[in-house]
Amino acid sequence: MSQEGSLTLTPLGGMGEIGMNCTMWSTETTTVIVDCGLMFPHDYHLGVDVVIPQFEHILNQKDKVKGIVLTHGHEDHIGALPWLIRWLSVPIYGSRFTLALVESKLREADLLNRTKLIPVAPRERVELGDMTFNFFPVCHSIIEGYGFGVETPAGKIVHTGDFKLDNTPLDNHRTDLEAFRAFSEDGVELLLSDSTNVEREGFSLSERDIKSAFEELFANAKGRIIVTLFSSHIQRIQQVLDISARYGRKIAVSGRSLVKNIEIANELGFLRIRTPLYMDTREMPELPDEETVLLVTGSQGEPLSALSRIARGEHKHLAIKEGDTVVMSSRVIPGNTLAITRMINDMYRMGAEVYYESFRNIHASGHAYREELSEMLQSVSPKFFIPIHGEYRHLVKHCRLAHQCGVEKDNTFIIEDGQPVTLCNGALTREAPLEMEEILVDGKGVGDVGLTVLKERQILGGEGMVVVFMVLDEQIWEILHGPTIVSKGFIFEAHYDHVLEDAKCIILELLENIGPEDIELLQDRIRSSLRRFFRKVLERDPVVVPVITMV
Amino acid sequence: MSQEGSLTLTPLGGMGEIGMNCTMWSTETTTVIVDCGLMFPHDYHLGVDVVIPQFEHILNQKDKVKGIVLTHGHEDHIGALPWLIRWLSVPIYGSRFTLALVESKLREADLLNRTKLIPVAPRERVELGDMTFNFFPVCHSIIEGYGFGVETPAGKIVHTGDFKLDNTPLDNHRTDLEAFRAFSEDGVELLLSDSTNVEREGFSLSERDIKSAFEELFANAKGRIIVTLFSSHIQRIQQVLDISARYGRKIAVSGRSLVKNIEIANELGFLRIRTPLYMDTREMPELPDEETVLLVTGSQGEPLSALSRIARGEHKHLAIKEGDTVVMSSRVIPGNTLAITRMINDMYRMGAEVYYESFRNIHASGHAYREELSEMLQSVSPKFFIPIHGEYRHLVKHCRLAHQCGVEKDNTFIIEDGQPVTLCNGALTREAPLEMEEILVDGKGVGDVGLTVLKERQILGGEGMVVVFMVLDEQIWEILHGPTIVSKGFIFEAHYDHVLEDAKCIILELLENIGPEDIELLQDRIRSSLRRFFRKVLERDPVVVPVITMV
Repeated sequence: MSQEGSLTLTPLGGMGEIGMNCTMWSTETTTVIVDCGLMFPHDYHLGVDVVIPQFEHILNQKDKVKGIVLTHGHEDHIGALPWLIRWLSVPIYGSRFTLALVESKLREADLLNRTKLIPVAPRERVELGDMTFNFFPVCHSIIEGYGFGVETPAGKIVHTGDFKLDNTPLDNHRTDLEAFRAFSEDGVELLLSDSTNVEREGFSLSERDIKSAFEELFANAKGRIIVTLFSSHIQRIQQVLDISARYGRKIAVSGRSLVKNIEIANELGFLRIRTPLYMDTREMPELPDEETVLLVTGSQGEPLSALSRIARGEHKHLAIKEGDTVVMSSRVIPGNTLAITRMINDMYRMGAEVYYESFRNIHASGHAYREELSEMLQSVSPKFFIPIHGEYRHLVKHCRLAHQCGVEKDNTFIIEDGQPVTLCNGALTREAPLEMEEILVDGKGVGDVGLTVLKERQILGGEGMVVVFMVLDEQIWEILHGPTIVSKGFIFEAHYDHVLEDAKCIILELLENIGPEDIELLQDRIRSSLRRFFRKVLERDPVVVPVITMV
Repeated sequence: MSQEGSLTLTPLGGMGEIGMNCTMWSTETTTVIVDCGLMFPHDYHLGVDVVIPQFEHILNQKDKVKGIVLTHGHEDHIGALPWLIRWLSVPIYGSRFTLALVESKLREADLLNRTKLIPVAPRERVELGDMTFNFFPVCHSIIEGYGFGVETPAGKIVHTGDFKLDNTPLDNHRTDLEAFRAFSEDGVELLLSDSTNVEREGFSLSERDIKSAFEELFANAKGRIIVTLFSSHIQRIQQVLDISARYGRKIAVSGRSLVKNIEIANELGFLRIRTPLYMDTREMPELPDEETVLLVTGSQGEPLSALSRIARGEHKHLAIKEGDTVVMSSRVIPGNTLAITRMINDMYRMGAEVYYESFRNIHASGHAYREELSEMLQSVSPKFFIPIHGEYRHLVKHCRLAHQCGVEKDNTFIIEDGQPVTLCNGALTREAPLEMEEILVDGKGVGDVGLTVLKERQILGGEGMVVVFMVLDEQIWEILHGPTIVSKGFIFEAHYDHVLEDAKCIILELLENIGPEDIELLQDRIRSSLRRFFRKVLERDPVVVPVITMV
């Protein structure tokens, strides 16, 4: 669909929802994939492990794809790579740290041999077919994030990636706004910018602001200090290392993802470790509480994470004790609120003091607030604007902000997943939307769990199930065995023999009224009659499965 | 357990959790129940409608119970009455409005004849056995709330109920702090106080502060205005009525609970209606958008509520349209965040402008903030303090606040559900904790859904189920029919014939290796072998139900 001098952007995820960021950039001769993330399942995705974009549209133009470029190493930007690389063997471009995370991910999936990982330095230019990607450093809640300045046949385009403007970052993890400005000087056709925090006024906190909160907590803590944070937030981890060293505390780490990320960051020289750091809590010698820091996973109350297990008293080597200070240096992701507060209450029960979101400056968002978004808009001052990385309401509000910052109203576009837009001859137009569905991954099954199965799980989970089965004599149409009724998740059977007895009578009646010729009908009737019966006597509506055999 | 001159308080709910408030007050001769609320199910309460306290301990002393006193009409304070009144026929005391809500609830359950509803006026004294309850008006997010000053054989006790101190309330719905002070003058043994907002500094917003937010929204709205709020928040409803009248807008109401509460409040003269109010959207004439207000249920995104159906385009008579202004004048209850944001995004998609929590002063909490809690503590200046109505962390922090306000540290007690405390001769002591469990209500079943059933539902909901069944010939131990495999919520079977075929082979093998004598063993083996098989090939672990018949 893309003609000479044109560029078509096709969002496969991340537009109008948060997570699963993945966009196809296609010119006449070239296709580049920008990010390839997963989404964690919503509450209604029963039993689903992760959600990934539908790659069919990429695979339809396999031969045009010159590579995958990555903004940064968060799961919602790299998490779906194993599923894409299985079908598409192309090189992957990103920062050293981003690629290190990708490498360990692909190694686990035994797919490393399917791709080439090509590290890109700050401000480096990468030519992919007729597009050239300039990698500009951006500050985010993970190190070595990039935004892109892209030269395309349709003109210059800027993609911010996930970013914030932190003027006093740690270790100079700064957004290279200069580079964005310089690239934009002679005019940018289109800006794609992070919308996550468009509803937040002013400027986001600087990573340095967190320091004072940590100072205060470390200065006052009498006993152990237990810190949890997002396990890929290397700058934050560095802060914990530094302040622990200053206060003469040694650190033990618990939680697989933290251990992995710290080891990777350390190998690449992204961490300064100036106090003993034990990567296995069992290696930690007996230390006085006031010299101990535990750095653990579980900021979101994930049931299997270190902190959750500690809070429930189910961790092999660690337990909360009176006098512990627990620092949750992270935000509460909506949907995890209940799990997190449950965990916090448990820790208070065990005598710990817990500091979380409500405590001032204990966490700084990695996404730009309104003033920072304005600054980016003014630095790039694009002709067209498309908000990315946000729920629908964020996209709406970001478009308005862009308009306030000088982009013409008609030149701001809200597009959602599956809605391609084409930039050509200075015009941006919508293409016909693509058929798109999110792909659910459950165990080894990719995409086989669809609406039907989810619906069944929803009923099973809410109402339970009843299996009725019997053996009939075909000739004389009489019951040889059964009806036997087995239920799961339905009722505590001991309380309800009478109900199950009545259910059997209903089945026998049906049998008398329905002739041998129609086994189908009999099954339908059993299903509908029993459901009606259970609704009436119990106000419950389980899945009823009749299994009938003729002998 | 209660001797002369003593009082034992037994919390059956609401301590260490929010919801299901219910406490037993027992002296030597008298027992009074304070509140009888329900709790809405947590995410892990699969398929459960509501959760109620365990009433066994009340029913064990049936004859001592002189009555039930109610603080206010919220579900977490009156919602469990139908289940208690079914077993316990005693009078219920409360404000006119509270009792009106109770009345409609008991009428629906056809239990009105089991009790006497006795309205109590502000500052009125009610003698119940050897206890006297003084009913003091408190300001809360529902009208006609009460706190109690109680004269007991063990001394004076103050129970705040759910309260805030609003010095500029609407229609003088004020907390009668004077009455609390006067009652406390000659010394109060014990204060029980609302802990919900102990983590919030300063003072809660006044109901009047909301007014300005409404003013701004009504002044700027070009099209229709759709307002949602907690349906029992009569003061807030009055605000919507007033401002609609001022701006010449007529109101149509949608949503069962709103209609019910407005009708009740109106009958009792608690509402001034100065603009046309249509209690059925179908009665509303065709009006210009700028003269229309829709007052609807659904502030929490409840799937069947009016607003959710409107947002999904499934409401019979109402739909969002370009230019609508939606005002969500309520807080986001944790756990509902995702449902609410989904709804908000849907409404933006349809072109509405939505104002919610993030918008300044669009909602005022009904619970006192720290400064107000201090004021109550100082006004009562009790000897002992027990924080109520909060999660564990709130109780901890409220105890600390009480200590700052002059209560001796050792005289602050955190008690959780099932932990009785006895006040006697100026001492407060813990009794042995009671065996307690929350009672789950699912349809007509009360308490029959226990951990086993929930566990089964959890697996069914996450993994689905597989039923294997076959008919065996007892003599020759051969299969006459089957094995037949039926699955629900497990896999999309079309994708997986081969898996199910392999499963059958596994069953046949088992059959050969296990002799006829042991059908039990055969079933166990089928269960374990198939689960192992499914875990291996699909990484899924469904409920496996083998059903085997011998003929």
